[in-house]
Amino acid sequence: MAPNSLTKRLETDLLGSMQISNNAYYGIQTQRAMNNFKLSGKKLKQYPELIQALAHVKSACATANNKQGLLNNNKTNAILNAANKIINKEYDNQFLIDMIQGGAGTSSNMNINEVIANIGLEYMGLEKGKYEQLHPNTDVNMSQSTNDIYPTAVRLSILLKQKQLLTEVTLLADSFLNKSVQFNDILKLARTQLQDAVPMTLGQEFKSFASTLREDVKLITNTSRLLTEINLGGTAVGTGINTQLGYGQLAIDALCQSTNISFITANDLVEASSDMGAFVIYSATLKRLALKLSKIANDLRLLSMGPRAGLSEINLPPRQPGSSIMPGKVNPVIPEAVSQCAYQVLGNDLAISMAAEAGQLQLNAMEPLIAVNILDSITLLTNAMHMFRTLCIDDITANSERCRDLLDNSLGLVTALNPYLGYEAATKVAKQALISGDSIINLIKQQNLLTQAQLDDILQPHKMTQPA
Amino acid sequence: MAPNSLTKRLETDLLGSMQISNNAYYGIQTQRAMNNFKLSGKKLKQYPELIQALAHVKSACATANNKQGLLNNNKTNAILNAANKIINKEYDNQFLIDMIQGGAGTSSNMNINEVIANIGLEYMGLEKGKYEQLHPNTDVNMSQSTNDIYPTAVRLSILLKQKQLLTEVTLLADSFLNKSVQFNDILKLARTQLQDAVPMTLGQEFKSFASTLREDVKLITNTSRLLTEINLGGTAVGTGINTQLGYGQLAIDALCQSTNISFITANDLVEASSDMGAFVIYSATLKRLALKLSKIANDLRLLSMGPRAGLSEINLPPRQPGSSIMPGKVNPVIPEAVSQCAYQVLGNDLAISMAAEAGQLQLNAMEPLIAVNILDSITLLTNAMHMFRTLCIDDITANSERCRDLLDNSLGLVTALNPYLGYEAATKVAKQALISGDSIINLIKQQNLLTQAQLDDILQPHKMTQPA
Amino acid sequence: MAPNSLTKRLETDLLGSMQISNNAYYGIQTQRAMNNFKLSGKKLKQYPELIQALAHVKSACATANNKQGLLNNNKTNAILNAANKIINKEYDNQFLIDMIQGGAGTSSNMNINEVIANIGLEYMGLEKGKYEQLHPNTDVNMSQSTNDIYPTAVRLSILLKQKQLLTEVTLLADSFLNKSVQFNDILKLARTQLQDAVPMTLGQEFKSFASTLREDVKLITNTSRLLTEINLGGTAVGTGINTQLGYGQLAIDALCQSTNISFITANDLVEASSDMGAFVIYSATLKRLALKLSKIANDLRLLSMGPRAGLSEINLPPRQPGSSIMPGKVNPVIPEAVSQCAYQVLGNDLAISMAAEAGQLQLNAMEPLIAVNILDSITLLTNAMHMFRTLCIDDITANSERCRDLLDNSLGLVTALNPYLGYEAATKVAKQALISGDSIINLIKQQNLLTQAQLDDILQPHKMTQPA
Amino acid sequence: MAPNSLTKRLETDLLGSMQISNNAYYGIQTQRAMNNFKLSGKKLKQYPELIQALAHVKSACATANNKQGLLNNNKTNAILNAANKIINKEYDNQFLIDMIQGGAGTSSNMNINEVIANIGLEYMGLEKGKYEQLHPNTDVNMSQSTNDIYPTAVRLSILLKQKQLLTEVTLLADSFLNKSVQFNDILKLARTQLQDAVPMTLGQEFKSFASTLREDVKLITNTSRLLTEINLGGTAVGTGINTQLGYGQLAIDALCQSTNISFITANDLVEASSDMGAFVIYSATLKRLALKLSKIANDLRLLSMGPRAGLSEINLPPRQPGSSIMPGKVNPVIPEAVSQCAYQVLGNDLAISMAAEAGQLQLNAMEPLIAVNILDSITLLTNAMHMFRTLCIDDITANSERCRDLLDNSLGLVTALNPYLGYEAATKVAKQALISGDSIINLIKQQNLLTQAQLDDILQPHKMTQPA
Repeated sequence: MAPNSLTKRLETDLLGSMQISNNAYYGIQTQRAMNNFKLSGKKLKQYPELIQALAHVKSACATANNKQGLLNNNKTNAILNAANKIINKEYDNQFLIDMIQGGAGTSSNMNINEVIANIGLEYMGLEKGKYEQLHPNTDVNMSQSTNDIYPTAVRLSILLKQKQLLTEVTLLADSFLNKSVQFNDILKLARTQLQDAVPMTLGQEFKSFASTLREDVKLITNTSRLLTEINLGGTAVGTGINTQLGYGQLAIDALCQSTNISFITANDLVEASSDMGAFVIYSATLKRLALKLSKIANDLRLLSMGPRAGLSEINLPPRQPGSSIMPGKVNPVIPEAVSQCAYQVLGNDLAISMAAEAGQLQLNAMEPLIAVNILDSITLLTNAMHMFRTLCIDDITANSERCRDLLDNSLGLVTALNPYLGYEAATKVAKQALISGDSIINLIKQQNLLTQAQLDDILQPHKMTQPA
Repeated sequence: MAPNSLTKRLETDLLGSMQISNNAYYGIQTQRAMNNFKLSGKKLKQYPELIQALAHVKSACATANNKQGLLNNNKTNAILNAANKIINKEYDNQFLIDMIQGGAGTSSNMNINEVIANIGLEYMGLEKGKYEQLHPNTDVNMSQSTNDIYPTAVRLSILLKQKQLLTEVTLLADSFLNKSVQFNDILKLARTQLQDAVPMTLGQEFKSFASTLREDVKLITNTSRLLTEINLGGTAVGTGINTQLGYGQLAIDALCQSTNISFITANDLVEASSDMGAFVIYSATLKRLALKLSKIANDLRLLSMGPRAGLSEINLPPRQPGSSIMPGKVNPVIPEAVSQCAYQVLGNDLAISMAAEAGQLQLNAMEPLIAVNILDSITLLTNAMHMFRTLCIDDITANSERCRDLLDNSLGLVTALNPYLGYEAATKVAKQALISGDSIINLIKQQNLLTQAQLDDILQPHKMTQPA
Repeated sequence: MAPNSLTKRLETDLLGSMQISNNAYYGIQTQRAMNNFKLSGKKLKQYPELIQALAHVKSACATANNKQGLLNNNKTNAILNAANKIINKEYDNQFLIDMIQGGAGTSSNMNINEVIANIGLEYMGLEKGKYEQLHPNTDVNMSQSTNDIYPTAVRLSILLKQKQLLTEVTLLADSFLNKSVQFNDILKLARTQLQDAVPMTLGQEFKSFASTLREDVKLITNTSRLLTEINLGGTAVGTGINTQLGYGQLAIDALCQSTNISFITANDLVEASSDMGAFVIYSATLKRLALKLSKIANDLRLLSMGPRAGLSEINLPPRQPGSSIMPGKVNPVIPEAVSQCAYQVLGNDLAISMAAEAGQLQLNAMEPLIAVNILDSITLLTNAMHMFRTLCIDDITANSERCRDLLDNSLGLVTALNPYLGYEAATKVAKQALISGDSIINLIKQQNLLTQAQLDDILQPHKMTQPA
Repeated sequence: MAPNSLTKRLETDLLGSMQISNNAYYGIQTQRAMNNFKLSGKKLKQYPELIQALAHVKSACATANNKQGLLNNNKTNAILNAANKIINKEYDNQFLIDMIQGGAGTSSNMNINEVIANIGLEYMGLEKGKYEQLHPNTDVNMSQSTNDIYPTAVRLSILLKQKQLLTEVTLLADSFLNKSVQFNDILKLARTQLQDAVPMTLGQEFKSFASTLREDVKLITNTSRLLTEINLGGTAVGTGINTQLGYGQLAIDALCQSTNISFITANDLVEASSDMGAFVIYSATLKRLALKLSKIANDLRLLSMGPRAGLSEINLPPRQPGSSIMPGKVNPVIPEAVSQCAYQVLGNDLAISMAAEAGQLQLNAMEPLIAVNILDSITLLTNAMHMFRTLCIDDITANSERCRDLLDNSLGLVTALNPYLGYEAATKVAKQALISGDSIINLIKQQNLLTQAQLDDILQPHKMTQPA
């Protein structure tokens, strides 16, 4: 017996035949895709949520086909069993195709079809490759098309993955809120346009970071509902060709049950087959979060500028020596890395927008690029926020005296006098102070504009940092 | 008497004095801004919704100040009267500053403060410039800062302006829906990845355009609710300095009443002073709409490719001779212009994102750029959709025979045979057809794979364009 | 006699007839374009360089046609005369079409064809509209197509317009250089990653701004040479259909002569008809300049942060009161506006990139969007740099004592000791200084690490700001 | 003896001590960076050109230090030897830090410093970690700062990596040129704005693809010269602190020698320390290439649309079955993947632009993001072009009869008659043809507008595809 036949099997498709390693659970179409696309180096196996999502969808479709009497119990069990193992991440190493792929996801869909067929065949006590018993297309892909399977699975994978993201946004917001409580009584100067403005507390400043992040938990959660509108059952172009009446709803019901997510059928399946709008706006929420994180990171770098020749209102925890040449230097490396992740998310969002525009007629062939960029952006943001919180925010300390000194030395108190002096008179005092270098309070007293008692009342810290 | 004193008045501010034309209702600070910013050529007067919005806000604040006993009836009436005239667009020509301006909107705020003061002074029977009787800052800007006025007004201006946008999206969707009804019985080939796919109707294709646009009416409307969360009352940095307790709510109540929009106080006024997140996501909804419009425009150009050597499934109405050299040529100029508008909206969205990231500490100085880009994007999209509908979609006709011929001549029927032949056998037939040039139906019959009766049943048009 | 016939003339084209005002030099095709495209509000007349460029090209083509004996002297003179008047800006008000237009520039080309024909007809003593004597297409557009005329004219318009841009970059660089001379002896602390670093002079800092801008004069100039490769003579798709052998070179020769620019024929006219690559990279040079300007603007805002609670190393000249609520506040409004212009240029660059990608087969229909965005970016940058220089840079002053104090108080000297102490020992001293608050010099002396004489030698200012 | 002491060594830095595995050639600072940055999953070891570049730079600096008598022969040899081994890729697995890192590249610089020190120590017969004999900072980093080492190494890594890129662009252009020769005699219809235009050859169409790519070889090569201007010797901020006079030139000389690249000292080292302009414009050339590739890919998808209901002028080689549901379907998966890579390059370019704008004062802390994106874009484009050529272009075939049929059936000949009939008469014929469905030639003959002999002469193929 030829040793080759022990270790290889011959598979055939539309384009011809190919030897496939007998160890492989994937088949000829996956192999072709592996040969065709050597592009990004990002393999499907690095995106376990997408593999799991594909398996969930396959499982749901098999259930629906079985209920409609199109797929017998034997085959159905084999498919469900295989899908389950894949969901348990037992076969991630069978998904070696590049995430950037032509074909609108066909390669990813055929990869899971073939792997399920072969695991299923073994479950049925048969050899891999005996597709006449359990066929990747006729059975595993029954009533399905890449064009409804892949968009559905990508949506599900994002929903699975965003849990970590939302957890990290929430934890980061909490961390800022903790700091805001801790910094509640530290009076400092607020700055607008980088110029000395009015009094505030450092607590208020940190609370604003918490608030802005909390809004994004809400926005991302709400927007992700658009991802629950799926085109499963639409098959090739949304007309449901090759399906029996009622199949789509059965499949979606099964998917809801296995994932605990409330999926619904998209309103117009033809539209849903080619439209990337849900991804566009979802990516925009990630972009918004990225922009906020970068703005916060920039603020922290400004506030911690120093150690001696900058604002130095706060101290970021040192995480590594800052310089190969400047002894003692420590840099705000964590916020710097946060901003870089944010910029990458913006870049990814642009790639997604361009891909979305490139849809043509009944399909968008660029969806794989959209998938990889959204999943990458989620990972980057999740990792960046985890790093930001645990290696920076949690350990920030404040220099309360420095904060107070800068405030007292500033002209930031003069605005509080507006209601008493009027804008023009207050302007005059401010101008004198600027030129003379004298303090506002001294000048007010010298010119008998207000009494000490009035000043004491007006300039009470809590009065200046909230409505009178 | 010097003739100059007849036609000019001297105004003074922090930086000195300046002669202002007595015809002008704006004052020294507006004049400085006009001198400083000669950048985009886009003047505030070209954005009447923003002027109206500023006037609404000023009116609301005056009402609140009056209720709190800080502004007397006389001054209040003068301000309300002036604001009203501005809302009626009587003074648009007094707003000549560039939309791109440094100062986070201070110039726009001072422009309306000065114009209101001078209209108000005349209403009080006084001369322009007698600010000791009605002061742009002390009175018109009482309890206010650019930093709460401008963000509030920009939000309001968008809400005012989006009405036209939503009207046009809806009308355009209706136009597509009308066409879809008209094209309901036209069988044609669906194409995925520009390759012949399966049967569908032209009506389904056009209905999908309607569906995708309707989704954006919903998304834009929902997202715009974020714009109703305002920081009015937060003044300089969100701490409400210079306001009396309760002022913010009174001002917002007044604003709701005059605009019929349900504004609410932002949850964290410090955050709301510097955060541009609502604009970022709102602009993203405009970007999404733009991407969809461009995709539709591209589809229509593909479907109307010809007149003889392309698909020619539909005819776009001719709107102008297409070529200076090629006689008889007519081009799809309307869809081409739609895509260009869409690309500009993407560019504007990027400018907005960069501006949003550039916020620092308690303010984002780049908000004027955000404002002008959102307003411009709304205008562009509104105009583009109006043009698209009235000059293109409404008059599209179909070449139903051509549609049917292309379908019949294609291999698009073979997919419908999958459930009967299985994927592998169907593939074999398809391959033979491709090589021989023969039709699928002939081959099926020759090989006795299905009877004529079976074929007749399977290939009924309505069966192929919906679930069995 | 009907009054209407006095003031209107009837014109006819492929699509039918239309009444055109007899005052108008443009004709039916321009009127159709005006009716079709009501989009951006940006009219061709606001882009005089593009009108001039179109006229130069028309003039050159007429000369070539005349030399080849295809256009008689009478018609040729009429065309040249008309083109000349247009170059002298006498007819800008005849160019009312929207800059965003479908048709790949056909409307712009027909606008100039019609205006030249009618001016020419009057020059020939005939009435407007008598096109059988001088026809917009047959005569004015002879041997031409929009597809070579428009790309050539857009290139020329950019080359005409960039002169102002390069002048302003050079003047701005000069202004920074002047400041650098003025600030030559001011020792200060350099900052990396916003943390105290090593000594430098303020002159070095400002010279770097000059240097970086000078590089862009060079890059923009070099890159603009790509714009001199034109497809004139290629007509519809680059095959030169409708031209006589040799025509293209004659036309380009004439264009070189009238513009004093060394245009050359593109290497592959088919490629040159649809490729937007020269615009893409030219726009990228504008983007690069924008990014540099924004970085400089940000730096100036950082260095002038204050007036009391920030770095305050330099003072920007006050240009307008900074706040409607905070008396005495002055903001860095000029740099803020510079950054906003920069962000818009990035947005424009994205619109250009998307338009470039959208070319199809033998043409790019989106070129009008590319044209308007490049011209707008040049205008914005030119205006922004003029403002930056005259209203900000020229009048910046330095706070030399503040610079020196921050340096002396910092740990920025310790790096200079590396070669003498080694990195580890220097690190130890730096750490002690940070913890104790003591100065580096004191600690060195206390620990007898170096003698006073050694320190004096090492810490000479000129030694620390250049190689030893 | 504790087993731990056998497998770990204790290392110390500014922030404290840490156990480092004795197997590791990296040290404490690399370990900190590995702990700090768990972001993108992209490790330095996946970017061998950057590791090699860092080693080249280290080698060059050691040589310069040795020549200036600052580094003894023993240490110098150890460093050179270590660097050499790294250049030979023997230690890639020691570079495990994330490519996205805070600190402006300090972690990458310290990674190579530590690895060289430890390889060097072993070469000197000493144990890893005995830094008092060969110190990562004092010796390996002598006269250096991250701020001149990292930018120099990134530039070098791009120059090393672009060789593959330029090879692939050239090969791809050659492939198109081969096809253009092969298709030289195939007459077809050119299309502008997707509408039937004028005759051309398929060879001309494919030659234009070759031409446009060749231009980019030239542009990328020219632009990459900007990368040879380096700031080596500028150390921390460009002032050359910690270097001896002449050091910079010695180091650059050594670098030129070891790399065979003509590096020169940047004109202004302070500017060169923070400016990212060379990267911005270099990335723009990659973007331009990407846009061209996507345009070509789109064209090929249009021309191969079918197989039966589209243009079908060319056939792309089938590379994988196209559908999981539609038997026999083959999709243009290779061009689709090319466009996706192009969109990613645009996204990367945006990330680079944002990072470039974020430079502050004397440094740009975001340079690591710029580095990873340029290197990734080069890889993506290189891989995409290799795939495009070998799996698509090389095997494209033409359907010459189909090309000719579409041409003959079109109105594309009418333009060739302009010089004989005039534009208006030609328009009339074209219009009649469109309405009647008749051919241009028939109508001309019926109306006796031209004789058969004239027509034969005018409509000779070679006449129509070039100037007369």
